[in-house]
Amino acid sequence: MKLYSYWRSSAAYRVRIALNLKQLDYQLLPVHLLNNGGEQFSEHYHRLNPQHRLPALQLHDGRVLTQSMAIIEYLDESYSKPPLLPESAEGRAWVRSLAQLIGCDIHPLNNLRVLRYLSDWGEHDSDQNAHWYRHWLQLGLSEFDAMLTQAPQDWCSKGRFCVGDSVSMADLLLIPQLYNAHRYELDLSSLPRLLEIEQHCMSLEAFHQAAPEQQPDAV
Amino acid sequence: MKLYSYWRSSAAYRVRIALNLKQLDYQLLPVHLLNNGGEQFSEHYHRLNPQHRLPALQLHDGRVLTQSMAIIEYLDESYSKPPLLPESAEGRAWVRSLAQLIGCDIHPLNNLRVLRYLSDWGEHDSDQNAHWYRHWLQLGLSEFDAMLTQAPQDWCSKGRFCVGDSVSMADLLLIPQLYNAHRYELDLSSLPRLLEIEQHCMSLEAFHQAAPEQQPDAV
Repeated sequence: MKLYSYWRSSAAYRVRIALNLKQLDYQLLPVHLLNNGGEQFSEHYHRLNPQHRLPALQLHDGRVLTQSMAIIEYLDESYSKPPLLPESAEGRAWVRSLAQLIGCDIHPLNNLRVLRYLSDWGEHDSDQNAHWYRHWLQLGLSEFDAMLTQAPQDWCSKGRFCVGDSVSMADLLLIPQLYNAHRYELDLSSLPRLLEIEQHCMSLEAFHQAAPEQQPDAV
Repeated sequence: MKLYSYWRSSAAYRVRIALNLKQLDYQLLPVHLLNNGGEQFSEHYHRLNPQHRLPALQLHDGRVLTQSMAIIEYLDESYSKPPLLPESAEGRAWVRSLAQLIGCDIHPLNNLRVLRYLSDWGEHDSDQNAHWYRHWLQLGLSEFDAMLTQAPQDWCSKGRFCVGDSVSMADLLLIPQLYNAHRYELDLSSLPRLLEIEQHCMSLEAFHQAAPEQQPDAV
């Protein structure tokens, strides 16, 4: 399999963690989001993903999967160990809702193309963009924490990871956002539970190896 | 089951279609997003969903599911007919990626809270907000159309619906966004395939009954 990736792309980071957890071999193909006007707009990449976004996973037969959460679910359905979703339908909905809180309600607002659009259109400077970025990230992470706190006990809201003592898709979405939070110097002292989860995740080789700094295209 | 809904919420609209397709009985509980400072911020609703967002589905045992795509997958796993995802892992990834293109890359940018933040913070007037709204919606729908056009034939990119001749989760995400597109008077003449899919979907009772105008809280 070939993963089209960029070292700092949160969405690609999620999929790298999944591939590592499943112990799958893959070829990493860096797509630089800034150089040459953005390599995701190249003719080659357009044929792979007309949405010009990362990541994309090319399968052995040449077909291309896009959207990080869809790719993670594909990997989970195709390679069962370790499972990234619980067994019960309710538990699966719970994990998916945590993942989507980040994948839908934080990440899309802080994406490169949105920041760029804000700059071009609203004439925002980089300080204003950082303010925007921090606003949605802080709000989203607080909401994520509130969800964990308020969850029914049988949804394993306690434990080393987001959902009990097993890594789930929720952790795959959370960790890259915490990386962003550190990069933007967010004050996370009011969210100790999230920092604990981060510590447990980053002690695992699969997470460590997927981190931006470990990528061949890291600057 | 109880569905917390608002007539014009695109995310609630998706779940209403799913509930109707699965022919499930549910009690609809309107939450007015504008009245009384937004009923989603009430103490009662906070206990159900600390993220203060719609929809929320309360199950028979009292537990609450949030995030529309997670709810739809829960309904699909719990009530198999008609299936909203294909059988193969690749096909499922394809449908999920179409759904997420809308659920992640269009909808979150045009959400009420984002428009409100733009107004308060960037001092945008309603014309500027409409410009922002149309920009992401037009871009996203064009990308969606490009995905359908470019899809491998065995992913059923032809047919009455997004994926062949069966309704899938992709249609459940597309239709509410087309409703928004009409409301904001977007020119969709360059996207005839999407309009055809809309026509086929809206001829089905499950879609028709889920539409905003059919809701008891419609104004």
